[in-house]
Amino acid sequence: MTERRIPLFKEGFELELVQSSAGAAVVQLAVKPSHLNAVGVLHGGAVFTLVDTSMACAIMETLRQGETCVSVEIKVNNVAPVKEGTIVARSAVGHRGRTLVHVETDVRTTHGRLVAKGLGTFFVRTPLTARGA
Amino acid sequence: MTERRIPLFKEGFELELVQSSAGAAVVQLAVKPSHLNAVGVLHGGAVFTLVDTSMACAIMETLRQGETCVSVEIKVNNVAPVKEGTIVARSAVGHRGRTLVHVETDVRTTHGRLVAKGLGTFFVRTPLTARGA
Amino acid sequence: MTERRIPLFKEGFELELVQSSAGAAVVQLAVKPSHLNAVGVLHGGAVFTLVDTSMACAIMETLRQGETCVSVEIKVNNVAPVKEGTIVARSAVGHRGRTLVHVETDVRTTHGRLVAKGLGTFFVRTPLTARGA
Amino acid sequence: MTERRIPLFKEGFELELVQSSAGAAVVQLAVKPSHLNAVGVLHGGAVFTLVDTSMACAIMETLRQGETCVSVEIKVNNVAPVKEGTIVARSAVGHRGRTLVHVETDVRTTHGRLVAKGLGTFFVRTPLTARGA
Repeated sequence: MTERRIPLFKEGFELELVQSSAGAAVVQLAVKPSHLNAVGVLHGGAVFTLVDTSMACAIMETLRQGETCVSVEIKVNNVAPVKEGTIVARSAVGHRGRTLVHVETDVRTTHGRLVAKGLGTFFVRTPLTARGA
Repeated sequence: MTERRIPLFKEGFELELVQSSAGAAVVQLAVKPSHLNAVGVLHGGAVFTLVDTSMACAIMETLRQGETCVSVEIKVNNVAPVKEGTIVARSAVGHRGRTLVHVETDVRTTHGRLVAKGLGTFFVRTPLTARGA
Repeated sequence: MTERRIPLFKEGFELELVQSSAGAAVVQLAVKPSHLNAVGVLHGGAVFTLVDTSMACAIMETLRQGETCVSVEIKVNNVAPVKEGTIVARSAVGHRGRTLVHVETDVRTTHGRLVAKGLGTFFVRTPLTARGA
Repeated sequence: MTERRIPLFKEGFELELVQSSAGAAVVQLAVKPSHLNAVGVLHGGAVFTLVDTSMACAIMETLRQGETCVSVEIKVNNVAPVKEGTIVARSAVGHRGRTLVHVETDVRTTHGRLVAKGLGTFFVRTPLTARGA
């Protein structure tokens, strides 16, 4: 039995929404040393946070007045490790149903090297469905 | 075309490793207001960071001298939103192969309410395989 | 440019629903040579079909009159290859919301060896939501 | 306690490899009534079998003498239901490491309507690694 603190991301993230439209968004993260994990590469939680946020941004402009969206599930494949520089997530809505949205993300370095792929599902809450999905 | 800053997790995370053994780990997160997203619930990136870290902790004690592990892919299902309190991730290794590890995670509030489920794959780097998976 | 036929599962599957209740189901598959893939192990499509079907069976008895369910997304981790014998899928609903259901599955041989893990999301169509999720 | 037979895919599948190269493949399935599920739409197991097979085909031509590949995990998002016609899976390798391959798939009707998205990981067995991943 142990008890140990694991401090992470002590400076937080400063994501940057570069571009967005109805169904697509580009969001980037400038990697800082505080985003790296114990083995010196970008923590999976940082990549995921970027993916999740860019997916939400891509969906945002498809929402109507009063609607909000929440992520139901997201899967991320970590293709290649990153240690520094800026990574760019491009999310695109594959299908927007009445309440479900399928969205995918491609994360690359600014040099175009693939870093991660994401595939997720969001739920759109309307005044009607907000009573509990 | 827009350009906008999205600051996240400005205080970072203080995860706590409550327990770990070869193939299992319990890690928890005390939710702070800075971990919430734009609609006032715990950001998916925070849940994922907890899941990913607890998975790595569960695998850690199965590693031999010189081995390290990296996450290949992780999927998280967000079952119920959280706004405050402490959430507890319990990760268990389902199978440990020579280089691949399948691991799953259950995230609950301290009252036992299911918050999220995770299912992931890690890769174990040995001096032999370190030349590039 | 090629054009080639890939015949699969020419005898089909004879799944067996062993047990089911509201939120849980046990479904099994007796592996036949026609279920194996080109390298002689059970095809991923066979494992997935078992997982998907057992998930649906677990949800079935939670449905009310007029409701049906469809799978939104499913992920399967193939933990260990199988060549023969019977494999047993146990699915359990983790959370049943008004329209979304989170469900997970554990596939084992009859000797208890872990074969695969599944994690998925289903959508419940009611007369109200049937107009298009 | 019940015991019930669930026969599926009694005619099997006749997939067709339309095109393949090192890192990409196009495989299609002509939907038959025996591929539909209890609610009259294409069974998730049929979509998955097509996705899995097309992923393997995309990887095949990247393999060297003596290497084989197995799927580690695959996730499929079912975007829209299908009842008839032919569906076409296009798989592309996102990254090919020494032993791990990240691959994604897009499934569409012949009219271009998105049916499903897949994201998966394969493991390449070489004479060296074949002793057990």
